[in-house]
Amino acid sequence: MTRLSNDPARFAEQALDGFAAAHPGLVRRVSGGVVRAAAPAPGRVAVVVGGGSGHYPAFAGLVGDGLAHGAAVGNVFASPSARQVRSVARAASGGGGILLAYGNYAGDVLNFTAARVHLEAEGVDCRAVAVTDDLASAPAEQADRRRGIAGGLVVFKVAAAAADRGLDLDEVERIARLANARTRSFGVALTGCTLPGAAAPLFAVPGGRMAVGLGIHGEPGIDERDRPSADGLAELLVDTVLAELPAGIDAPAGQRAAVLLNGLGSVKYEELFVVYRRVAELLAAAGVQVVAPAVGELVTSFEMAGVSLTVCWLTDELVPLWCAPADAPGFRRGLSATAAAPPAPVLAEEAEEPVPPASPASRAAGRRLLGALVAARDAVDAHADELGRIDALAGDGDHGIGMSRGVNAAVSAAVAAVAAGAGVGTALTRAGDAWADAGGGTSGALWGVALRGAAVALGDDREPTAARVTGAVSRALADVTRVGGAAVGDKTLVDAFAPFAATLADRVQAGQPVAAAWREAAAVADVAARATADLVPRVGRARPLAHRSVGAPDAGAVSLALILAAVADAATAPTREEETAR
Amino acid sequence: MTRLSNDPARFAEQALDGFAAAHPGLVRRVSGGVVRAAAPAPGRVAVVVGGGSGHYPAFAGLVGDGLAHGAAVGNVFASPSARQVRSVARAASGGGGILLAYGNYAGDVLNFTAARVHLEAEGVDCRAVAVTDDLASAPAEQADRRRGIAGGLVVFKVAAAAADRGLDLDEVERIARLANARTRSFGVALTGCTLPGAAAPLFAVPGGRMAVGLGIHGEPGIDERDRPSADGLAELLVDTVLAELPAGIDAPAGQRAAVLLNGLGSVKYEELFVVYRRVAELLAAAGVQVVAPAVGELVTSFEMAGVSLTVCWLTDELVPLWCAPADAPGFRRGLSATAAAPPAPVLAEEAEEPVPPASPASRAAGRRLLGALVAARDAVDAHADELGRIDALAGDGDHGIGMSRGVNAAVSAAVAAVAAGAGVGTALTRAGDAWADAGGGTSGALWGVALRGAAVALGDDREPTAARVTGAVSRALADVTRVGGAAVGDKTLVDAFAPFAATLADRVQAGQPVAAAWREAAAVADVAARATADLVPRVGRARPLAHRSVGAPDAGAVSLALILAAVADAATAPTREEETAR
Repeated sequence: MTRLSNDPARFAEQALDGFAAAHPGLVRRVSGGVVRAAAPAPGRVAVVVGGGSGHYPAFAGLVGDGLAHGAAVGNVFASPSARQVRSVARAASGGGGILLAYGNYAGDVLNFTAARVHLEAEGVDCRAVAVTDDLASAPAEQADRRRGIAGGLVVFKVAAAAADRGLDLDEVERIARLANARTRSFGVALTGCTLPGAAAPLFAVPGGRMAVGLGIHGEPGIDERDRPSADGLAELLVDTVLAELPAGIDAPAGQRAAVLLNGLGSVKYEELFVVYRRVAELLAAAGVQVVAPAVGELVTSFEMAGVSLTVCWLTDELVPLWCAPADAPGFRRGLSATAAAPPAPVLAEEAEEPVPPASPASRAAGRRLLGALVAARDAVDAHADELGRIDALAGDGDHGIGMSRGVNAAVSAAVAAVAAGAGVGTALTRAGDAWADAGGGTSGALWGVALRGAAVALGDDREPTAARVTGAVSRALADVTRVGGAAVGDKTLVDAFAPFAATLADRVQAGQPVAAAWREAAAVADVAARATADLVPRVGRARPLAHRSVGAPDAGAVSLALILAAVADAATAPTREEETAR
Repeated sequence: MTRLSNDPARFAEQALDGFAAAHPGLVRRVSGGVVRAAAPAPGRVAVVVGGGSGHYPAFAGLVGDGLAHGAAVGNVFASPSARQVRSVARAASGGGGILLAYGNYAGDVLNFTAARVHLEAEGVDCRAVAVTDDLASAPAEQADRRRGIAGGLVVFKVAAAAADRGLDLDEVERIARLANARTRSFGVALTGCTLPGAAAPLFAVPGGRMAVGLGIHGEPGIDERDRPSADGLAELLVDTVLAELPAGIDAPAGQRAAVLLNGLGSVKYEELFVVYRRVAELLAAAGVQVVAPAVGELVTSFEMAGVSLTVCWLTDELVPLWCAPADAPGFRRGLSATAAAPPAPVLAEEAEEPVPPASPASRAAGRRLLGALVAARDAVDAHADELGRIDALAGDGDHGIGMSRGVNAAVSAAVAAVAAGAGVGTALTRAGDAWADAGGGTSGALWGVALRGAAVALGDDREPTAARVTGAVSRALADVTRVGGAAVGDKTLVDAFAPFAATLADRVQAGQPVAAAWREAAAVADVAARATADLVPRVGRARPLAHRSVGAPDAGAVSLALILAAVADAATAPTREEETAR
């Protein structure tokens, strides 16, 4: 919903004032709207666009070099008045005539037409083009009754580029009509939107559902269905837009197209990119050559969560106009954006080093390590949701996902290393590197540090005796403490790791076998991990959330204890080698 | 919430793939993130930024000419791994050394530091700068413990501009540290955010409340309070950021500042502009010279509704680096954007024409018109909410607001005209122009047409006899029908207007006095307006909403009937002149 306003009745006007203040080098506020900051070029055609507020960057944000010369800006979802259009047209005029361009809505048609008639009566050569790109708003036989949505951007841009090249009004109008005739859009809405000052949304979409064919003012769609995956949405949009080709185009294959994937308000750019990834694949599969795509918020409907796809089937004439540089607050394109990317230089990627030679004892230990890592992986995967829930109490809830990703990568890397004859040191190093890389974040980095620390202590030559295992654990703890900067009591995994290492060393020194000592130490770690619930965090993931985290254990300590227990179980279970030998 | 994804665990990776596909001329996908599309310039320093996903345009969207040379992109809200950072740094490297820049979070510090150490061990000169701009995250004495939010953009931009000018790594690092030391940010959250695949938001803000001092991962703020107006929020942000000046600056007055007003996800750009309008006023009042401001989504936190203000107190050295052109997908600045706007040309604004001479009878009729218009205004204002509710059933709910704005402007214009001696024709023309301009949209345009049509019929010379009033109404109806394109039965105001005009003409022809005939016709219009509830709309506001509108009357027909009835009451009430004469 709209949450920030002063007087809702003045929302559109105050937004326009603030917009102009934010872009002093690009636009200039005039009565009725905005025009380019630079004075009009004498004798040139001016392209004046417009429509209601609530659609930013349409329409004020589309004014600037290479895009519209001016925009008449009405109230929220309301056409500008004819006087506003006249005022902006006068301010934008360079004397070469005016092209008015706007979406095909009753109010806009009325007011822009009235302005055109008035300006013509004053002797100004003036034309008007209503954009009609929305497939869902009328059948193909009534294409001239269709409403205008995101496709307006393509029409405005090619017309303005033509005007800036010095073409006359006849030509600019012809090009605008050509682009409009070759542009098709189709959109969906996942939520409604709430206008400034309104208590209730203008319309609503049931949770998990999607309104198909929705416009930009909450007009109802042509269908409602379950919300698909991002890929499923891409398929719906591409299928629909490719199903109605303009006259003269028999098939998409071999065509060049300007493509817009438009977010209508509160769809995240990253969500749009996930959808676009599949759109690009589908268009490529259909043989369409995408020219200078635009993915982002281009024409919005307040904070409606919606997406629309626009395709303009380009001609030789339209390609350079669509690709020409533009510098408007809401749509910019540099020369570099449309240049073909140069071939990638040959990079010195990190090469995988060969596995160094290892003693038979260390190689055997490497094979036992695999069992431990697999046990750790199974435990993490089985508890990933639970770890996420614990983390969400005082963090962002992704600890389970991150640990799962990390330990799975560690298993794969260790398997590959052991298969290549690695000793336990190299296997641990590779596992640690993979864990840090795939796990990411703080946890991934610290697990990488721990495994690499242990690897240094064990090496590839020596028999991993009980004392050496104890030493490896101590080394891992020391490295984690040093790199992470956490001490016991800070509410991190160190709170479980330190008592584990101490208990392990104590029991081994007392003569207990490693497996038994490990099991006992793991039990101590488990108790210590649970006890972190009482701690106030001082560093690490939970520090910024100190208040919320008291009462919940540290997720990193819990996952460490879980892994240590799983490894204990694996160590006491018979290995496959032992089973085979039995 | 995040609504569009495939496998949530692959969200960040798929978003990055789609992002790269959408910006082929600007960026190139490499292992671990993205780099500029163009090959690295030999011998130049490369600025490599990075952080978790979910913050778009940070961090991938900040790669491009004049901005970062590369970005390492981690999982959702998770640091990239050290290997990712190394991989991106290698791909971005031109051989002049690497500056790593990132927000001051535990995971990022760990992984970027590990990458720096690794690269240095390979002989690459590498430095690391953690951005610490968020005032709310630690007190001034512990400024180095503060986290990084939107201020990172300023640090990245000036460092990259310095690198692109050929400065060496020592200088680029110095400039980055200088900018960081002079940058302060402060933010608020109005809602939480929901990560891909999560069922519940990461955190929530109670309705009507605001979390003050919130970061970009849902870390709690330092306070919670009622949500203020847009202006109130601007005042909080400016007061807070101006309260802690960097060393060497005694007062804001006379300083130059880079200013970012950042939207964190689902705050509408138009809302940001309403807030920025007041921010700019406050900074100007404090004597701060704003240099090349940026208002929009710069660093986000999924779809969190939040706003942050960043001020970087610029030095002579930093000004040109901040203003230098940049062409990244998420932040572009042309040369024109920072150029001072040229003085506005003198425009031929529409001049108010002098009031033409009028007969005494027409002037008297003009005075009576004022009474009718005032009655219309009072009726509309008294029923504005009701008209809005009726409109909301099948439209965008702004009919009451638009009618109120229009009729109020009409009254003012007619009062001014009559005071200047206008006849009824000119008074109606001015009222109609004002109504069309202030009311905007379809209704405003049609009421303007109606009043101007009546004006033509009545003129400024003639006595407005009963026959001429009837003729004026017929002319108004004819013009509205022609311009609006609606016929009886289309569910528009014509459905009330046409029977009104017919009844008025019929009764006047039958010899009834105008006032009585008008009253009777208004009653017919009222019945007809209510009867539009049964109609299926064919043109106008309700057409796209045909299904929803059946059962509800047309708001335009209802407001017309309301005005006609109010005018009838005003006409039968004694005028002030008549009262005085009595």
